[in-house]
Amino acid sequence: MTFKVDFKVRDYECDLQGIVNNSVYFNYLEHARHEFLAYKDIDFAALAEQKINLVVIRSEMNYKDSLRPGDEFYVEVEAQKESKLRFAFYQKVIRKHDQKLMLDAVVTGTSVNERGRPFLHQEIERLFS
Amino acid sequence: MTFKVDFKVRDYECDLQGIVNNSVYFNYLEHARHEFLAYKDIDFAALAEQKINLVVIRSEMNYKDSLRPGDEFYVEVEAQKESKLRFAFYQKVIRKHDQKLMLDAVVTGTSVNERGRPFLHQEIERLFS
Amino acid sequence: MTFKVDFKVRDYECDLQGIVNNSVYFNYLEHARHEFLAYKDIDFAALAEQKINLVVIRSEMNYKDSLRPGDEFYVEVEAQKESKLRFAFYQKVIRKHDQKLMLDAVVTGTSVNERGRPFLHQEIERLFS
Amino acid sequence: MTFKVDFKVRDYECDLQGIVNNSVYFNYLEHARHEFLAYKDIDFAALAEQKINLVVIRSEMNYKDSLRPGDEFYVEVEAQKESKLRFAFYQKVIRKHDQKLMLDAVVTGTSVNERGRPFLHQEIERLFS
Repeated sequence: MTFKVDFKVRDYECDLQGIVNNSVYFNYLEHARHEFLAYKDIDFAALAEQKINLVVIRSEMNYKDSLRPGDEFYVEVEAQKESKLRFAFYQKVIRKHDQKLMLDAVVTGTSVNERGRPFLHQEIERLFS
Repeated sequence: MTFKVDFKVRDYECDLQGIVNNSVYFNYLEHARHEFLAYKDIDFAALAEQKINLVVIRSEMNYKDSLRPGDEFYVEVEAQKESKLRFAFYQKVIRKHDQKLMLDAVVTGTSVNERGRPFLHQEIERLFS
Repeated sequence: MTFKVDFKVRDYECDLQGIVNNSVYFNYLEHARHEFLAYKDIDFAALAEQKINLVVIRSEMNYKDSLRPGDEFYVEVEAQKESKLRFAFYQKVIRKHDQKLMLDAVVTGTSVNERGRPFLHQEIERLFS
Repeated sequence: MTFKVDFKVRDYECDLQGIVNNSVYFNYLEHARHEFLAYKDIDFAALAEQKINLVVIRSEMNYKDSLRPGDEFYVEVEAQKESKLRFAFYQKVIRKHDQKLMLDAVVTGTSVNERGRPFLHQEIERLFS
């Protein structure tokens, strides 16, 4: 089963080209990842409070087509362990009415402690269970 | 000579981890690219008015370290023609006080007309002159 | 009947204080207004395409309490004609789990044509029907 | 002497109407206030780290005209003590090339401690010195 989060484009997310601004896709992907974490009982904000920060170290995004005002879409999330300290999220943005792929992305993250050193909190192990 | 734009982190760009949110780097990179276009006498907003849209088709970003409230930094831009219809921007985000590389990125773009078809306006040729 | 739109706080909307940034409430209010317009069959983006722009001329916002990561809430919208060319939106942000009022606002708008002159498109009359 | 911060509109701040989105003025005003605080040796982010939060309780904004792509402008800040626990910021957004007033605003704030109770840190007294 692939994890999905539903969205609808909000007008303020569109730029002077009349389409969703490129940076906003990062917001969509992040929100979908955090909902996925919550689903796995991992609380991003609570971890941040404890100074354990999940951070992105690399993103690759392929923009296939542009979302427009009012478009409904969903974001898919799949997680995969890359190494002891790295995990990758495979994400797709799909427009609802025609199931068109708008963007696909791979976002690689790790977990760091207060001093910015790699640190895999056991809570994060749940990501792959 | 490498084109550079100066920035300073604004508090509202920081998220609950107390660091600049990942999506905001995309804003920084975009603003630097548009300043670079302006320097080459290419007006992104005016082209959009004419329904000629410069669009990003791929981005690769490597996050090396996190910008924090008040940090001063600059963004470098170098453009390279990839094919008849594609151009790549090589971009770096450098923190000023210690010249530390915070992020490097390759952003690939193209130019499309009103119907979303590839169309290289002659104005854009200036990018490589 | 009061028009309502459901929302959930997204982590990227929170700032370094760990709460939703003040500017984001403007986004929430705007999105709720545009959904209200759509419900009244007024298409903000399509009007903008025709160079008829609905613009805000004044906002008053009272911040009562702060939304936090994961909070679910809704935004209420009521519209009232203020004069021939002005309309006011009375808006409230209400946290779901305890029905607490987080923010109330009055946003006054008008409609302008291509040259920025007041112009009340008949489509907008629907707002008060 | 009135405190001023220089800005230039960035294209990503513009929405599908081709003008700066209303919510973005709140970002501009906030950044100018925080620069003003820094000038008075008050560190907003450091206070937030100590769980002392400067919060906005009311904003009134009058939108006079719209900033457009590439516009240069500055934001003025004047602070005034309203009561023992409240302070008001009088702010103006002025377009540079013709000194046109684009927006004026009054933003009222207070300071709260970890439990959200009013608490005026002595550092904040500097605001009025």
